[in-house]
Order: sequence, then C-alpha cells, then structure tokens
Amino acid sequence: VYVFLKNIAILGSGSWGTALAYTLSKNNNIILWSYFEQETKDLEEYRENRHFLKGVILPKKVEFTSSLEKALEKSEIIIFAVPSFAIRQTALSVSPFFNKDTQIAVCVAKGLEEDTSMTLSEVIEDCLPKGSKVCALSGPTHAEEVSKDIPTTIVCACSDIEVAKKVQTSIMNKFFRVYTTDDIKGVELGGTIKNIIALCAGISDGIGYGDNTKAALMTRGMYEISKLGVAMGGRAETFYGLSGMGDLIVTCTSMHSRNRRCGMLIGQGMKVDDALKEVNMVVEGIKCLKAVKDAADNINIEMPIINEAYNVVYKGEDPRKSVYNLMTRDKKHEN
Amino acid sequence: VYVFLKNIAILGSGSWGTALAYTLSKNNNIILWSYFEQETKDLEEYRENRHFLKGVILPKKVEFTSSLEKALEKSEIIIFAVPSFAIRQTALSVSPFFNKDTQIAVCVAKGLEEDTSMTLSEVIEDCLPKGSKVCALSGPTHAEEVSKDIPTTIVCACSDIEVAKKVQTSIMNKFFRVYTTDDIKGVELGGTIKNIIALCAGISDGIGYGDNTKAALMTRGMYEISKLGVAMGGRAETFYGLSGMGDLIVTCTSMHSRNRRCGMLIGQGMKVDDALKEVNMVVEGIKCLKAVKDAADNINIEMPIINEAYNVVYKGEDPRKSVYNLMTRDKKHEN
Repeated sequence: VYVFLKNIAILGSGSWGTALAYTLSKNNNIILWSYFEQETKDLEEYRENRHFLKGVILPKKVEFTSSLEKALEKSEIIIFAVPSFAIRQTALSVSPFFNKDTQIAVCVAKGLEEDTSMTLSEVIEDCLPKGSKVCALSGPTHAEEVSKDIPTTIVCACSDIEVAKKVQTSIMNKFFRVYTTDDIKGVELGGTIKNIIALCAGISDGIGYGDNTKAALMTRGMYEISKLGVAMGGRAETFYGLSGMGDLIVTCTSMHSRNRRCGMLIGQGMKVDDALKEVNMVVEGIKCLKAVKDAADNINIEMPIINEAYNVVYKGEDPRKSVYNLMTRDKKHEN
Repeated sequence: VYVFLKNIAILGSGSWGTALAYTLSKNNNIILWSYFEQETKDLEEYRENRHFLKGVILPKKVEFTSSLEKALEKSEIIIFAVPSFAIRQTALSVSPFFNKDTQIAVCVAKGLEEDTSMTLSEVIEDCLPKGSKVCALSGPTHAEEVSKDIPTTIVCACSDIEVAKKVQTSIMNKFFRVYTTDDIKGVELGGTIKNIIALCAGISDGIGYGDNTKAALMTRGMYEISKLGVAMGGRAETFYGLSGMGDLIVTCTSMHSRNRRCGMLIGQGMKVDDALKEVNMVVEGIKCLKAVKDAADNINIEMPIINEAYNVVYKGEDPRKSVYNLMTRDKKHEN
C-alpha cells in the first residue's frame, strides 16, 4: 500500500476537508490547511474538528497549518476543499507556490461561479500557472460516513486521464473506492445541476406528496439534466454516474442536504427568501437555477421541471400549481 | 375528458389492481375481476378492498365480477394485475374470450417466468390469439399513493407505439401521468432486474452501512443493469427511465419492498432461506438472480455487484466479504 505514499495538502478544514484528511491519511501524509489560525491551533490541540466533524480523531499522519506556502511545500496533490465562493481567492493565493510540473490540483467544491458560470475546476485552472493539471473529485459522499469508514465511492475526473489515474492510485483505499473519467465537464455540471432536482424533491416532500412523486421528479429531472448537460459538453453516462445520479440519490434521501431542506420549507408554504434565511447557507440549487435556465433557453431544450422550479423561485408560483402543470402537460414519449 | 371514455377490465383485485380501478375510473368504466367469488361479494358489499387497500372507497363506475367472460364482454382494454406466477394461467383462461382486433392486453405484473425466462408480456402474448396487442405498464407506483391521488408517473410500452398511445390516452389523468415507449423489452427487464439491486441495497442497510454505500450500489448497479439489458435487447435510456431507475428509487427507499426487506434480513445475518420464509412472499430479486447471472455469463459481461449477490444468495458468502470484494476490485474507469 505504501508504495504510493504521497504528500497531500487539503485546503479547507470544513467537514468534507476533515473527512478527506481522515480517510486519505490511511495511505498518505496529509497537511490540512485552515483559513483561520485559531482553527489550526484547535486542530493541533484536540486532533478533532469539534465544529464540523465531532468525534473523529485524526491520526498522527495529519499535520495542520494555516500557511498556504507551508501546505504546498512538499505536497504532490493539492485538494481544494474550501467553500465554492472562496475557490477563486484561494486558487489565486495558492498560485505563486504552485509548481505545475510536479503538483496536481484537485477540486472537491461544487457549483458554478456567479457572473462567469465557470465550473470550479475551470476557475482553479484560470488562476493557477498556465498548463497546471486540475481534477474534479465528486460523488455520493456524506463526510460523516467517510469518517466512519463506511464504504464509499467517488469519481476522479481530468481531461488528461493519466492525471486522474495518478490521483486514483494515491487516494483509493478499501473504504474509499475511486473511479476515473476524462469527462470533467460532465462530472462538475452533474454535481451542480442535480441540486435543482434535489430542491424540487424537497418541495414535493414539503407539500406532502409521496415516494411516487419524488421518484418521478428525480427520474424525469435526470432526463432533463442529461439532455442539457450533453448540449453543454458533458456525456450522458457521466450524468447517470456517481457524480450525477449517485449524488442526487444521497441528496434526495438526506436530511442534511440544504438544497432538499430549503425545498421542503418552500413546499410547506414559506417564501423563498425566508427559506433561504432559515437555511442560512448557500443553496446551490437556487444559485445555479438562473444560469441553467438561461443555458437551456439558449440551446432551445425543453426542461419542464427546471422551468417550473424557476417559476416557483423567481416568480412566486405556487408549487402545487407547478406540479399540476407538470402532470397535465401534453402526452409524451418517455425519451 | 370523457371523449376517451373506455370500458376497462382489471384482472386481479390485489392492492395494485384495486388502486388502478380507483384511478382509472376517473375517466373510464371499470370492471374489476377477482379470482375468488367471496372477494367479489365483499367488494360489492363494501366498495372497499379491506384486505389489500383499506380506506379507499371505489366509485360507482367500478363494477365487480369473478367471471372472466363477463369481465371481457365489453372491455376495450384488459389489464393483467394478477401475481406473476398466475399470469400464464390467467392469460390461457382469458384467451377464448379475447378479441385481438378490438381488445388490447396490458400487463402490470413484473418478473421473468421460471423455466422459460420470458417476460410476462411475452407470456401473455404466447397465450392469447396470434397477433394480439400486448402492452406493459410499469413505473414508480406505490398503490397506496395512487389511491390517494398523489402525483404519479408511469410508462406504457408496446412494440407498436400507436397501441401504447391509445392506452395512454385512455388511462392518463391529472394525478396519473403516462409516458409511452416502444421498448417493451427494456421496460420489463429493467422492472425485474432492478429488484436484484434493491435486494443488495437492503443487504447494505441490514449490515448498517450508510447512504454513501447504498447510492454506490444503486448507481453502479444501474450501470450493470443497463449494460446487460442492452445486450438482452433493451435500450439504455429505458433502464434509466421510470420503469428502471425510477422504480429502483422507490423500491430502495420503501419499507414496503419485499426485495429490500429480504435483503435487510440477510444483511443482519439471517440465512437466505430463513429470510425468504420470514418475508413469506415471492422475492423477485432472488428469483430472477440465476437467470440474470446466466445471461450475463453467456454474453460475457462483467457484473461485479450481481455476481456478489449471487455468491451471497447461492453460495452462502458473508455479505461483508462481498462488499469488501467490490471495494477492492481493480481500479476502474467509471464507464
């Protein structure tokens, strides 16, 4: 196992960054970077992330720092696990220390950048030295479960498949199985757009509809995602893979998902703005809705579910009316 | 709405047959056939199926009979809602009364016939007069929810798409949305094989693994199903549609699914035979496992999840060992 031992920097000590530090330390040396010095001190003192991943003790092979320079010094793989909104700033700060010939960047944040609609690996690529290698790592992966060694799968994507394979070899262990693909666009789009469907599933649950309704929204929603995603440059099979459908499944069954939770509040009759305040975190399904709807309109693809989601969120339509609209559309073929 | 009013016979008054009688009576006259005369008498007396769908009162447009001849007399659409094992016998009994020029048969039972490995619409076709029109109707449809007007979607499949469209026009209502496809093989295979994955999801839950593990099994399981199903004559997009993935999603999240429940018992350490006794109903995921494994072996397709399911069910392998095997396979591309 230790043949492949690498030095890995994880930037961001939220729940996912911490869970990754835990599992990747099984066959690598880890340095976990926190934005706040106090967090680094706490982690050094307790070896536990008491804010975001209580109860998980990090092994000795995990070091802590709040210096980006130190984090990057010896690392072959640099994982960006900061929140979506902080990706560009972090990548810009990393850039002076990043060696494009010996280091690989891996993005685990999801979303589209506001204004540019770039995927987050594209943002990182935009900030690092020209020619830097950037992967995306995405899948159905609750941090709490990964940090308890519950069997988990994930996909590592890079346009250069050899780079994805290198990362796969370093980070895979018997509890954490990594697949590879060269369809990085599909992985990142699916991981983002699926949040709109999770929002819709939440709305349906909030209204009090059943498993039939939710399964219909998820299945027909995936159909819309794959049609749009293909038009935007991804491959259909990627959207039906771990980063798309797989992640949608955990999101739609989890109470932890802010997208689903926000949807539930809306379904229960709360105004969208109030629901966003109540959830008090970025709700990616709402944030990317406009960009996705614009993209669909531009390429003239029919997306009835995403359109109704848009009407609910941006035009104050009653969600029951939306479901009625969806149920009474023209008769259709399935594909 | 009443332009399309039809006379529809529903054969079988279990929970699904009764729920169909309830929803299809919104725009059709229904005659509901029971195998047992006593059931017909009870239904006439209470207009409620007290055994299988308590609390749902059937409207006046539903008649009851236990005469197949009477059931078929005026009906344009004949829905086979008897249990899988009774499909051939029922179709044989129906055949003398069936007019292939004016009547359409619709199969809502799922499974593969033992010995022949035929799909159930193929069994019906085999029994009815040569040239009879046979559809399959399948999707994520808990009977309890359909009978409460909870929004539900389903797909109607027929090799002759015009026949599928005729059925769609007759049975669709604002709570019950019907899509069409000509890929009847894909619809029936997906609806059957997905039960193996539901069994595996149940095993994972029974062991105590998490949402990550279940999402991985469902996603990678669908990948196996679609590969196999395509080789067996279906289309990939059908397996990812309502009858395949959609139905898998409700099955894997439902406590009512006997496939999932049987899997949970096995995951908790019960012997397979004891789990089958405990569930005390046909567990389609186990029943079709051998036929599916044989088919996969014959066409030389790698199906790691279905293979491990086979080892657990037929060779007594410890399910934890199976999951370990799956997690530690060679490194793979996602597709």
